[in-house]
Amino acid sequence: MVKAGIIGATGYAGAEILRLLAKHPQAEIAWIGSRSCAGRNIAEVYGNLAKQVDLVCIDDDTETMKEQISELAGQVDVIFTATPQGTCCSLVSPQLLSHTKVIDLSADFRLSDVQVYEKWYRLQHKAPGLLPQAVYGLTELYREKVKNTQLLANPGCFTTCSILTAYPLVKDGLIRPETLIIDALSGVSGAGRGAKVADLYCEVNENAKAYGVTTHRHTPEIEEQLGRAAAAGADGNIADVAKGEEKKLALQFTPHLVPMNRGILVTAYADLVPDADGNFPEEEKLRAVYEKYYAGEKFIRLLPEGAVPETRFTEGSNYVDIGIKEDLRTHRVIMMGALDNLVKGAAGQAVQNMNVMFGLPEDAGLDIVPCFP
Amino acid sequence: MVKAGIIGATGYAGAEILRLLAKHPQAEIAWIGSRSCAGRNIAEVYGNLAKQVDLVCIDDDTETMKEQISELAGQVDVIFTATPQGTCCSLVSPQLLSHTKVIDLSADFRLSDVQVYEKWYRLQHKAPGLLPQAVYGLTELYREKVKNTQLLANPGCFTTCSILTAYPLVKDGLIRPETLIIDALSGVSGAGRGAKVADLYCEVNENAKAYGVTTHRHTPEIEEQLGRAAAAGADGNIADVAKGEEKKLALQFTPHLVPMNRGILVTAYADLVPDADGNFPEEEKLRAVYEKYYAGEKFIRLLPEGAVPETRFTEGSNYVDIGIKEDLRTHRVIMMGALDNLVKGAAGQAVQNMNVMFGLPEDAGLDIVPCFP
Amino acid sequence: MVKAGIIGATGYAGAEILRLLAKHPQAEIAWIGSRSCAGRNIAEVYGNLAKQVDLVCIDDDTETMKEQISELAGQVDVIFTATPQGTCCSLVSPQLLSHTKVIDLSADFRLSDVQVYEKWYRLQHKAPGLLPQAVYGLTELYREKVKNTQLLANPGCFTTCSILTAYPLVKDGLIRPETLIIDALSGVSGAGRGAKVADLYCEVNENAKAYGVTTHRHTPEIEEQLGRAAAAGADGNIADVAKGEEKKLALQFTPHLVPMNRGILVTAYADLVPDADGNFPEEEKLRAVYEKYYAGEKFIRLLPEGAVPETRFTEGSNYVDIGIKEDLRTHRVIMMGALDNLVKGAAGQAVQNMNVMFGLPEDAGLDIVPCFP
Amino acid sequence: MVKAGIIGATGYAGAEILRLLAKHPQAEIAWIGSRSCAGRNIAEVYGNLAKQVDLVCIDDDTETMKEQISELAGQVDVIFTATPQGTCCSLVSPQLLSHTKVIDLSADFRLSDVQVYEKWYRLQHKAPGLLPQAVYGLTELYREKVKNTQLLANPGCFTTCSILTAYPLVKDGLIRPETLIIDALSGVSGAGRGAKVADLYCEVNENAKAYGVTTHRHTPEIEEQLGRAAAAGADGNIADVAKGEEKKLALQFTPHLVPMNRGILVTAYADLVPDADGNFPEEEKLRAVYEKYYAGEKFIRLLPEGAVPETRFTEGSNYVDIGIKEDLRTHRVIMMGALDNLVKGAAGQAVQNMNVMFGLPEDAGLDIVPCFP
Repeated sequence: MVKAGIIGATGYAGAEILRLLAKHPQAEIAWIGSRSCAGRNIAEVYGNLAKQVDLVCIDDDTETMKEQISELAGQVDVIFTATPQGTCCSLVSPQLLSHTKVIDLSADFRLSDVQVYEKWYRLQHKAPGLLPQAVYGLTELYREKVKNTQLLANPGCFTTCSILTAYPLVKDGLIRPETLIIDALSGVSGAGRGAKVADLYCEVNENAKAYGVTTHRHTPEIEEQLGRAAAAGADGNIADVAKGEEKKLALQFTPHLVPMNRGILVTAYADLVPDADGNFPEEEKLRAVYEKYYAGEKFIRLLPEGAVPETRFTEGSNYVDIGIKEDLRTHRVIMMGALDNLVKGAAGQAVQNMNVMFGLPEDAGLDIVPCFP
Repeated sequence: MVKAGIIGATGYAGAEILRLLAKHPQAEIAWIGSRSCAGRNIAEVYGNLAKQVDLVCIDDDTETMKEQISELAGQVDVIFTATPQGTCCSLVSPQLLSHTKVIDLSADFRLSDVQVYEKWYRLQHKAPGLLPQAVYGLTELYREKVKNTQLLANPGCFTTCSILTAYPLVKDGLIRPETLIIDALSGVSGAGRGAKVADLYCEVNENAKAYGVTTHRHTPEIEEQLGRAAAAGADGNIADVAKGEEKKLALQFTPHLVPMNRGILVTAYADLVPDADGNFPEEEKLRAVYEKYYAGEKFIRLLPEGAVPETRFTEGSNYVDIGIKEDLRTHRVIMMGALDNLVKGAAGQAVQNMNVMFGLPEDAGLDIVPCFP
Repeated sequence: MVKAGIIGATGYAGAEILRLLAKHPQAEIAWIGSRSCAGRNIAEVYGNLAKQVDLVCIDDDTETMKEQISELAGQVDVIFTATPQGTCCSLVSPQLLSHTKVIDLSADFRLSDVQVYEKWYRLQHKAPGLLPQAVYGLTELYREKVKNTQLLANPGCFTTCSILTAYPLVKDGLIRPETLIIDALSGVSGAGRGAKVADLYCEVNENAKAYGVTTHRHTPEIEEQLGRAAAAGADGNIADVAKGEEKKLALQFTPHLVPMNRGILVTAYADLVPDADGNFPEEEKLRAVYEKYYAGEKFIRLLPEGAVPETRFTEGSNYVDIGIKEDLRTHRVIMMGALDNLVKGAAGQAVQNMNVMFGLPEDAGLDIVPCFP
Repeated sequence: MVKAGIIGATGYAGAEILRLLAKHPQAEIAWIGSRSCAGRNIAEVYGNLAKQVDLVCIDDDTETMKEQISELAGQVDVIFTATPQGTCCSLVSPQLLSHTKVIDLSADFRLSDVQVYEKWYRLQHKAPGLLPQAVYGLTELYREKVKNTQLLANPGCFTTCSILTAYPLVKDGLIRPETLIIDALSGVSGAGRGAKVADLYCEVNENAKAYGVTTHRHTPEIEEQLGRAAAAGADGNIADVAKGEEKKLALQFTPHLVPMNRGILVTAYADLVPDADGNFPEEEKLRAVYEKYYAGEKFIRLLPEGAVPETRFTEGSNYVDIGIKEDLRTHRVIMMGALDNLVKGAAGQAVQNMNVMFGLPEDAGLDIVPCFP
């Protein structure tokens, strides 16, 4: 049994790790931390976990954790950090990583360039020296590297959905990546469980709005990864692209908040690349590229022609649903992806990565039928 | 492996059986029927089931089924009928039941008195002769009888929640059952997947209303069962109360429709019975009665003092959450219960009953952590 | 033109007063206060008011207001206090009331007995001496007194709906008021605009729960008013019942939170009173009593036989919709009422009272068609 | 008083015309038609209209209407047709238009080219001869022509929002119109009140999806109008562009369905046009262009720098809220607009056009404060 500890267990992503690990056949939860609910049994805080998880939260305030982390790490095989940006990089160290694996759900180790991190997140990175050993945990693309890392950077929810949706056509050069416009919708759980007026029921319900227009922090993460895919090309492997060798991209990414609990829906637009004769690829050819990359993937469902992904059909599961449509009038392709932001966009992918890191079946604890309606 | 067939598989309850059986370790689905979607793969109709269930719906129009039912029954150990009232009793026969078990999610076999059925449902019962052998499948109360029946009447969603919420105090005579007022809230999935203006998004959203006031069909079902509990008394067993020996009750039951997908919330009021000295029982004593009946029940969660059940914490699971509060000013007790109408209120309880009927662990396929948020 | 000032203008009720007064033909807003948004233009805080209200919030922190209230009062004819309990009674004084009318949307002056207030609200009342001159502003019942008061206690949302729904039958003695069980549903805006985890979108959405069971603060307000109605009887006038002469009642009141922005739905149960021969009144007779009291009321809509009130049909308006159903099996009547908690349950009734207090047409600024869907 | 008749009064758009005309100071409703609710009082069908509109629906089945339309037209000054595509053009005739104005909320007369209509709508147009005299009723752009027409084509909801959002920059040549990608979100009321499984509460709630990808019928309407704007240029007038002289455009338009009752949110992307020196215009300059066109418009609210439009702030009103953001990294501008699809996107704009057609104040009956929350 893999023993796990969770820092930030009472946020939505942290609690979702609990939901998943509670039924994981080869993992068990050793301890959980929370700053706001320290000393309380998790079932008082998340009533859904009653009779399923019986653990009292330890205080995981960052300063407190710094003192305890060595001891706590000694009790587990892996630590999940479901914490705000800046926390994980304050806690990890080469010494810690020498005996315990860390899966970080924040952005601390997602971007290979510390300057890009500091610019977009407006934070000073506390452990830039560890960046080279962090592996970006988009499991489907970095599976081999995930196997051997001690420090895993779990991707963001928008990022996972955006990258997986556009990856095949970018990598095989069928679209012009610099024309990519990614328009995304998010459920409200992505905003976390903090008490903010902007996330009150009456503020979000019966409303739709864009936010973070031109400035959302997931933008450089998408750019780096799709830039790597473009550099790898059809014959290369994204994981082999050396740092700095990725194609430099400036994408358009615009998230919107819509009134639902869970779900990310990405609608991405890009210009198709014509062949030497000026002919554009047919939709059938585009579909074949998706099949090539994803046919064997357990958690990716390619939709049949004419179908569009819907967030409801992924709810509670680790699936990403992907569909495409070519526009013969505009010579663009519209690529669409849907997932559950708390599962494949956070906790589920974290568990998927844990499975790979410990040599377990990749879908252990994750073979869940989405719950609809 | 138990082989199952499902009639009415593309309604919400039918599809929920599919969701549950898809991961059931000891059951498999042999065939599924649908009238509206005959000939279509279920994953086209319920996108959540893609990569999980790969079956084409056979036509289960009642007339068509009458011709095929013997043959179809021969392929399975159990048939689930997730159909409108009147369908199951048109299809079952002693011959059919001689070799195949039937779990009916409709009301056809829930009421022991055919006249009560015909009065409240305004239908002629097609197989009244089978009523005596039908077992009412509120598993926690009729477990022993469920084990040995061929024809199981799966209770309604409001009924399951109402009965389990009030049962201990009715049975032990701590409340006056004739004073029971049951006020219930329901999510919209209880209305089914039929195309009706009244169930359109814009008609239901941002609205609350009562319906079926004084006339809802689940009323006599609650009355019969709580009447049996009252007749059994603290020392008796509800399953031993002979037909017609139940206490005759006329309860108040009022359901309301509120804008959410899933969930039943029951708030039940009753006058407490004072002891010989005119003293009313303390809340602690009332709690002890609930403990007596439910402490060992896997799917019932008794909430701590002061806590109220919330539908969100049961979503996707087979749990019933129950809490109570005594009012010292009015000498009433307020009993509250919550469950997921598609799981414990329909498909989950049906699978729970299947497990009992086939000698499987009662929670096989049902050990699910509720999904929140 | 009536000049108005609003303390607490950036809460939901305060902002709703702004929405209504912005189009009021005979009123204008002189100043608005806010603690959290002092110094900001209201249109930055409530985007719906852009191009309609162009005012900057003054700081209305209670201590600050104490210093300014005399001066501010001098600029207006009426002050609305849409503030937490305890604020209004800290600010008003006989001197203030000598020249400016006050309409208080909090509970400070709703209960005639200061001890009941202090018990249920757990606050010390700062101006008990003013209680005798406060008029309870359920306009339809106290219209004549409202005309002449300087200090108006605007009723609560649950209270308005509960009282108006049950009033005719209580007053005419057709139901036994001590058997009243009031089960109510509320939209989330009733919880206000404060940043609390419990009111976050993801906490409230897809959920239903009871709260304040046996202890909700609107209980004694309903009890006092229906107790007055019972004491008045069919031939008396509720406004003439002397303090302390009301019938003492202990009602059951249970509110529930359901996922919608606006709306109160009340479902009230009571035992019917049989006549001397033991016959119960027919529904037609009960309807006639409602007609007697409400036929001439602009803002009360009595629904036809068989119809139930729905919150959606009152949204944005000052209407209360009322329907009843007799249960011949239980000899109870189910009385149902619906209203918009921010309008008839708060700001609309406040404006209605303002109209009466200043001799304006009672529906000035309130003749609004509810917005559906 | 302008006398109005409404065909299709029990659809959402038709009922919204009723809501608005009920309080219009210079209009009255003479008759209303409905196919599904013929013979019923409108207040039974739309409970919000009780005590506000007291009219019985006549049967407006198309064949029935053909016989009655002359007589019905004689009773009114204007007929609103809130009907499916193909109905209005089956009913109007030169004779009818000679004495009665018609405001058509369907697409029948929106596109100047009958072939484009027949291709996108897959219908044969029944009155192509009337197309030249129809005026496209985007009031802000065609006000002068609206004044004098007998046949007004009221624009679609997506169209109104998309065109008004992009118009200034297209017209003044600051963006390249062929790069326009319009990503739109819609509330569910846009789908109408028909009983379809796809629009049931449980199908739409907790879900987001794209639809009509590359094929939505509002696309050619947007293309024609923005093509006219591009042809007019900064110094011209869109209304003066002759048929066929518009710039031919192939835009990308993708609508999405999100779970809310009302609202359209448009997020439009386009490449900025650099000046001769290769410098891109600053956001300030872009804002000035919006001010130039819209500063005097009653129903357009230009948001301050950094603000984004939100559908909630337009609910129930005729407002369009517009905000923009320049992306210095990609040299694109993101143009965003929000409106209420049933008001400015349908009934409100229809009334606005009626006001202009009859020489009434343009905001008569439309000076409504949006209702939030």
